[in-house]
Amino acid sequence: MELKLISKKEDYSSRIIKIKNVIIGDGSLVVIAGPCAVETRDQIFKTAEFVKSQGASILRGGAFKPRTSPYSFQGLGEEGLKLLKEAGEAYQLPVISEVMDTREVSLLAEYADILQIGARNMQNYSLLKEVGKIKKPVMLKRGMAATLEDWLLAAEYIASEGNEDIILCERGIRTFEGYTRNTLDLSAVPLAKDISVLPVIVDPSHGTGLRQLIKPMSRAAIAAGADGLMIEVHPMPEGALSDGHQSLNFREFEDLMEQLTPIHQCLRK
Amino acid sequence: MELKLISKKEDYSSRIIKIKNVIIGDGSLVVIAGPCAVETRDQIFKTAEFVKSQGASILRGGAFKPRTSPYSFQGLGEEGLKLLKEAGEAYQLPVISEVMDTREVSLLAEYADILQIGARNMQNYSLLKEVGKIKKPVMLKRGMAATLEDWLLAAEYIASEGNEDIILCERGIRTFEGYTRNTLDLSAVPLAKDISVLPVIVDPSHGTGLRQLIKPMSRAAIAAGADGLMIEVHPMPEGALSDGHQSLNFREFEDLMEQLTPIHQCLRK
Amino acid sequence: MELKLISKKEDYSSRIIKIKNVIIGDGSLVVIAGPCAVETRDQIFKTAEFVKSQGASILRGGAFKPRTSPYSFQGLGEEGLKLLKEAGEAYQLPVISEVMDTREVSLLAEYADILQIGARNMQNYSLLKEVGKIKKPVMLKRGMAATLEDWLLAAEYIASEGNEDIILCERGIRTFEGYTRNTLDLSAVPLAKDISVLPVIVDPSHGTGLRQLIKPMSRAAIAAGADGLMIEVHPMPEGALSDGHQSLNFREFEDLMEQLTPIHQCLRK
Amino acid sequence: MELKLISKKEDYSSRIIKIKNVIIGDGSLVVIAGPCAVETRDQIFKTAEFVKSQGASILRGGAFKPRTSPYSFQGLGEEGLKLLKEAGEAYQLPVISEVMDTREVSLLAEYADILQIGARNMQNYSLLKEVGKIKKPVMLKRGMAATLEDWLLAAEYIASEGNEDIILCERGIRTFEGYTRNTLDLSAVPLAKDISVLPVIVDPSHGTGLRQLIKPMSRAAIAAGADGLMIEVHPMPEGALSDGHQSLNFREFEDLMEQLTPIHQCLRK
Repeated sequence: MELKLISKKEDYSSRIIKIKNVIIGDGSLVVIAGPCAVETRDQIFKTAEFVKSQGASILRGGAFKPRTSPYSFQGLGEEGLKLLKEAGEAYQLPVISEVMDTREVSLLAEYADILQIGARNMQNYSLLKEVGKIKKPVMLKRGMAATLEDWLLAAEYIASEGNEDIILCERGIRTFEGYTRNTLDLSAVPLAKDISVLPVIVDPSHGTGLRQLIKPMSRAAIAAGADGLMIEVHPMPEGALSDGHQSLNFREFEDLMEQLTPIHQCLRK
Repeated sequence: MELKLISKKEDYSSRIIKIKNVIIGDGSLVVIAGPCAVETRDQIFKTAEFVKSQGASILRGGAFKPRTSPYSFQGLGEEGLKLLKEAGEAYQLPVISEVMDTREVSLLAEYADILQIGARNMQNYSLLKEVGKIKKPVMLKRGMAATLEDWLLAAEYIASEGNEDIILCERGIRTFEGYTRNTLDLSAVPLAKDISVLPVIVDPSHGTGLRQLIKPMSRAAIAAGADGLMIEVHPMPEGALSDGHQSLNFREFEDLMEQLTPIHQCLRK
Repeated sequence: MELKLISKKEDYSSRIIKIKNVIIGDGSLVVIAGPCAVETRDQIFKTAEFVKSQGASILRGGAFKPRTSPYSFQGLGEEGLKLLKEAGEAYQLPVISEVMDTREVSLLAEYADILQIGARNMQNYSLLKEVGKIKKPVMLKRGMAATLEDWLLAAEYIASEGNEDIILCERGIRTFEGYTRNTLDLSAVPLAKDISVLPVIVDPSHGTGLRQLIKPMSRAAIAAGADGLMIEVHPMPEGALSDGHQSLNFREFEDLMEQLTPIHQCLRK
Repeated sequence: MELKLISKKEDYSSRIIKIKNVIIGDGSLVVIAGPCAVETRDQIFKTAEFVKSQGASILRGGAFKPRTSPYSFQGLGEEGLKLLKEAGEAYQLPVISEVMDTREVSLLAEYADILQIGARNMQNYSLLKEVGKIKKPVMLKRGMAATLEDWLLAAEYIASEGNEDIILCERGIRTFEGYTRNTLDLSAVPLAKDISVLPVIVDPSHGTGLRQLIKPMSRAAIAAGADGLMIEVHPMPEGALSDGHQSLNFREFEDLMEQLTPIHQCLRK
């Protein structure tokens, strides 16, 4: 694997990424939470307030949504970004949102603190190069059919343009198993951290697609060494415009968060 | 599967696509041939001349190459497009080349007769929408982890913007089998033609990654009902800047072409 | 791949297997047809008569069925074997049936002309060794997760016990694609024939699980170089005790057979 | 999924399995350790002594080995079983060993306290029925291409013959990712425990095939809710007759065990 910039160095140090007051990669546990898509001001503000109160440190919310069908809700676009940014500011939460088009990188960079490259665009090399030119951290989700090598080389694309603030995100791969939406490949967490300097976040919401698996797989991700989690939370999942079946409601998110800190502390001993 | 524009109609007719003097989807067999990447004037002209002489009807050649590593040859860019267009004109061959960036769609449309969306960008919905707005045919390769449904819905994205001249291209999916580069899924050919109105081309070069499989799998693709083939041909595969191991040299391509017409005619009876 | 007995020899010859008056591996096309499971005397006799009249040369019929659920029909056992043998004799068709247990190898060998090892038992090495000790041909189906190497090494197990009359059968592998029951991997046909001396049969019934794909994929299998086909045929598929959805009725089988010989002859030229 | 005997009951209780002084399924953490294959008296005794001293509670050791090639070491057979049993008795460790043949079930039951069905035989229904008739616990490994449903239905086969003392073992599935030997599917742990009454053990040795992943994936398995772990340990992995690359040496096993109890206790709070 021809990695130059993101490969593990001899001193075995890792890259530490700072986003406002949040630090990723220093051994702490970062929870990114929020709805799949920003839908209304009320929805994103309520969610921001609640996830902040439970200890989440970054707010997520999609404005440009990569949907399998052109007839599904495609996101609010720039209006969604504005609402996300306002909600983040109101509750002191840095925000992350997905960028899907090279022409929208500067727009996203105006509103979001972290730019997300989704699984479907992991090998959209034009987009990778474009986010490689900005000065904001990028979260690179693993593609559905991406090997570990493909994924790390995609990160290398970003780094090769000058931006080394890259956060990897394992979100499950496609396999023959249809019971879960994807097969969450937790082995990729210690492997990616071993081979590269980059922090690794796990997304059990997409990685399993089943609400009842979020808690055990969040625990497992932490135990595998993940630097953080990305969790879909919605005030009313059954009414969500996308991914409702894998989103937690507030009570479920509270229940999840109560478990995470003790486990993380226990593992750090 | 929520298909509106590309779904099979009651009369079971198919979409016929005309590119200059070439027709795809009318029951004839179309062979698209040429190098993985345009490398030099000499290389693309020689290849164009040869494939034309053997019965190929469209010339392929990459100018913007989606390479797994940022340190691999990335293509000649616009210079490659110019050479491709000139070679196509010199030998009366319409040309096809891949577009990877929404910002380059108009550039590609200037030079190429068909715009190719590669496997890695099959769910790059911004790009799909952008090529949906032009007036040239688009060839949509199947993504490495794309189900039949994902693939057809990606085509629907293009159609939903107004461009229904879409050619599907099966090029293999990722499976556990590592002997071949991908697993060529020929069942997708009759299925896609059954469910949609679109013609389907098969790419055995990427679909197998092994030169010795191009001939039998080309025959099989025709027998499965494919409307055409896309074959990588290079004057000197061992010296190619990309995909040399799966490219045919001129003698091998000649040998392949000799077999195809008789089989196709036999099947049409 | 450490093949000793079944690897291709320098003279590039292939193994020719004779079963009564049927020859497999000499370039002719062998069609094995019959129901998934033997259900009644009437069912197997009617099917035998019909498939014989259409040019099939071997009769299939399961007596011991490997069903995913213990509560599904498990086959008629020895009674099924008796009926199969009688039907085969009545219509001069050698018969093939699956063996699932080392203790039943001699029983099967008493009734069947070819013993089948199913996909689920491809790496049941005790069973492979046991059928390696008999004097009857063995058809080895590829396992659902078996690489080409695993499959050929499983054949080598049989050969290593003395029985080199082995017929390989490609029947699809498990992938993320759920539209078809399995993904029929036709590249495995030329590859297995290239690496080993063994003939290769294709089973499009299990390989696709969809009745409408049997015809195109049978054509494709022949074009890829298969030595034969195995097709599930039932007098009344909608009433079959197993695999009805992928079985052809008599009219469909007749329709299929009409296409095969011309294609095969065309390809041999 | 048509489960009758092993499905979760209304009271949400789980099956608790007792093997001599060891209990699986009551919330405690059981570690099964030992070499892939029994090789010599010295090897198995030394390993038994060491793993016992570190807190393992069951000794593993293969006597009949399912090897991909017929030319690989096939195990010591009954002699291996004798040595395993003696070592287990010497150190008060119940022992587990794999059975591959219906004819050997009674032999195995004579020596082993738990009979293991390997991944390759998960759908060897004759074998499942045979171990369903004995009075000893059975550990059923998940097949390489087995869905959750296939796996649980295979367990139902055993139960349907009268033996409900079944332990499930997740050991990785086959995917396109070749960096690891298999893809360890930890989501299957909470799912299988949710749907069925059976305890679930995780085998990170086969599940990853990489020594450096055993520790993080053992931690993750516990965090996902596994009832235990199965770990390959060898006095000198580099000299092992099978699976040396994924076996831990004594120092590595000691290091692993030191981490497990604190994590397990922390999670139980």
